[in-house]
Amino acid sequence: MKPYSSMNREELLAQRALLAAKIEEYRKMGLNLDMTRGKPSPEQLDLSNQLFDGLSEKGFKTQNGTDTRNYNCPAGIEEMREVFAQILKTSADNIFLGNSSSLNQMFDSLMRATVFGEHDSDKPWGQIEGRKWLCPAPGYDRHFRVTETLGFELVTVPMTKDGPDMDVVEELVKDEKVLGMWVNPVYSNPDGFVCSEETCRRLASMKTAAKDFRIYWDNAYVVHHLFDDESSQGSVPDMLALCKEAGNPSRVYEFASTSKITFAGAGISCLATNKENMDHARKYMAVQTICNNKVNQLAHARMLPDLASVKAHMSRHAALLRPKFEMALKVLDEQLKDAGVASWNEPRGGYFISLFVMKGTADKVVAMCKELGVALTPAGATYPYGKDPDNSNIRIAPSFPSVSDIEQAVNVLAVCAKITAIDKILEA
Amino acid sequence: MKPYSSMNREELLAQRALLAAKIEEYRKMGLNLDMTRGKPSPEQLDLSNQLFDGLSEKGFKTQNGTDTRNYNCPAGIEEMREVFAQILKTSADNIFLGNSSSLNQMFDSLMRATVFGEHDSDKPWGQIEGRKWLCPAPGYDRHFRVTETLGFELVTVPMTKDGPDMDVVEELVKDEKVLGMWVNPVYSNPDGFVCSEETCRRLASMKTAAKDFRIYWDNAYVVHHLFDDESSQGSVPDMLALCKEAGNPSRVYEFASTSKITFAGAGISCLATNKENMDHARKYMAVQTICNNKVNQLAHARMLPDLASVKAHMSRHAALLRPKFEMALKVLDEQLKDAGVASWNEPRGGYFISLFVMKGTADKVVAMCKELGVALTPAGATYPYGKDPDNSNIRIAPSFPSVSDIEQAVNVLAVCAKITAIDKILEA
Repeated sequence: MKPYSSMNREELLAQRALLAAKIEEYRKMGLNLDMTRGKPSPEQLDLSNQLFDGLSEKGFKTQNGTDTRNYNCPAGIEEMREVFAQILKTSADNIFLGNSSSLNQMFDSLMRATVFGEHDSDKPWGQIEGRKWLCPAPGYDRHFRVTETLGFELVTVPMTKDGPDMDVVEELVKDEKVLGMWVNPVYSNPDGFVCSEETCRRLASMKTAAKDFRIYWDNAYVVHHLFDDESSQGSVPDMLALCKEAGNPSRVYEFASTSKITFAGAGISCLATNKENMDHARKYMAVQTICNNKVNQLAHARMLPDLASVKAHMSRHAALLRPKFEMALKVLDEQLKDAGVASWNEPRGGYFISLFVMKGTADKVVAMCKELGVALTPAGATYPYGKDPDNSNIRIAPSFPSVSDIEQAVNVLAVCAKITAIDKILEA
Repeated sequence: MKPYSSMNREELLAQRALLAAKIEEYRKMGLNLDMTRGKPSPEQLDLSNQLFDGLSEKGFKTQNGTDTRNYNCPAGIEEMREVFAQILKTSADNIFLGNSSSLNQMFDSLMRATVFGEHDSDKPWGQIEGRKWLCPAPGYDRHFRVTETLGFELVTVPMTKDGPDMDVVEELVKDEKVLGMWVNPVYSNPDGFVCSEETCRRLASMKTAAKDFRIYWDNAYVVHHLFDDESSQGSVPDMLALCKEAGNPSRVYEFASTSKITFAGAGISCLATNKENMDHARKYMAVQTICNNKVNQLAHARMLPDLASVKAHMSRHAALLRPKFEMALKVLDEQLKDAGVASWNEPRGGYFISLFVMKGTADKVVAMCKELGVALTPAGATYPYGKDPDNSNIRIAPSFPSVSDIEQAVNVLAVCAKITAIDKILEA
């Protein structure tokens, strides 16, 4: 088959008739498929079912004798901080363990900056009229909502396969109202891009007008590889070290969690930052709470005592996830490649496939899928304010449905993308 | 023995010599006793060791099929919300479950009010210069620190055996800068007082100048009775219902937790409030996090499925705590009653005994105890800004040490209180 762009009107109409028939077929099937959110499947969650087994027999004390059941140890237990230190290539001294949600730690951190300012701020960020935040897009909708809710103007930065477009970023940070930036460095949501070392170095060393500029480095998928071959796995340098080397030691707050390692709703979240930021944060955290859930930390540390065990565990996740990604990519390839009206990345890890359909059609495609019983993340969700300027990006989340459901759903999506593209071409 | 007030100088000096000898004895013993914080003993924590046993065999689904391991169900699982509803005499619709710390929920709630305001506010509280908060004292130091950190001027309200002095409160709330108030209604920290029904009704119905006035009703010890005889147990009416009846339905945020029911650092916290407050809070909570730890909620709901099981469990705590309180009170009675230089309440529940030593001597008594190896909460900690105007109150936390340690520690405390009182009388 040839690309739609080289078809004439009759050829397009003939294609359209075939696609319309296909859609009628799908309609009759009464599908009910959900590819909206990047959440693990029950089989993935089953990999950690033993998390609490034997806890009462082995007792609730850490290696150094801390009773995890009681109040104390606000930064989290030593052995679990050490696991995160290994994952993030930093030192356990830089690690603070929260409850299950790293998003919660990001929100709280920005709330503190809003109300109290950073340790190197002249005033609380809430007092800075017209404050702005850089949002590489496509990106994570929940990131954008946090900074929007906290009163920042969201400034879109284009994504490249090497991470945020650094030429654009370096220009934007000359504005002193730009106080920070989201980055999802490894297997970005939704593109699956990995920041290159050069991107990391430029982020660490760039000159910012705001002296208290912060990067929120959400390393959500740091060990979430789809393939065991280490040479093909995405990775970034220790960003805390890079920032320190570059003379900007307080520039970065790094986040991670076990949400997609153990239990999505009941894991351990982690904040990593330098001593000045940590001391500043902990001054307020000590007022906020006495400690976080250390029994859960202990259960995690016993099941995943080091980076090697984490890698072995993630390889079992990969075995469940890989066939789903492969199926989605196979269907995209079979159904959409020749037509030449869509493009996508083939991620080596993470939780998403980012599909770009013909400009100006993403909302129609998502609506049509919904009508046919295939739920997708709303078009635009991957952009600040939910508005994709090209109306083109659609986030596919293949982790939760079964392989056969993915096959079905992505076929529906591809057919909808094609018929919508033809209509767009015809009306032009 | 007669009261010190009716002794002459010689008699006091004779007493002093006896006490000084006693202190030398204590000094030689090299004591190391800690009565600083209201934390449960290991034996109390052991009562809940089975919390996670059988979790993997029984599976991670709630009664209605929710998978607690995954993302979802932000307000918490139904069965655990129902348990808290029974404990607080309200409806499960009014309940939101957090992670382990209710203090964290209070802090977050006040942060939201600071940055966004309440649903009935004209502007965010952070924009109100000179905002004030009522602090019944003696009270909980961590409460005071939250509102101090968030920029409120702390206004002390005297405590009575029926709760905060309502004549004073009703006057103070005529000031529109007074935005809210801490209340610890049942077995108050540290006095162990219980708000009378009249106090509750006056709090619910009083006219406040601030239309968005809030009571932070920290029902931390709602089921924490020391005695099983129900007729002697402290209780308060459902404050949400009282406020609604009085035409002030959004006046109260109620808090509770299982911190002193199951694990102090790894339990379940609870916020209860009316629909308007809840909808407003959840608008921001939905940005802050996807959900809290529901696996822990499920473990709790299975071990403590209803109020009856909670009561039975709390009776086992009481069996461990009662001898400690009885010992502390016995020593106070034996050592301090006749001298007439100190007073204290005999609480029927909660975690503390509030001791009032001779005015102007609390700091000296605490310092002297410390020198002898007995750690107490710093004098003044139970008052706003850590300043007890009478320099008289000392909080005794008998839950953690053993009965024999308590006997020892309270004897030391009593001797220090007496010798310090004599010195004060003599220097007058």
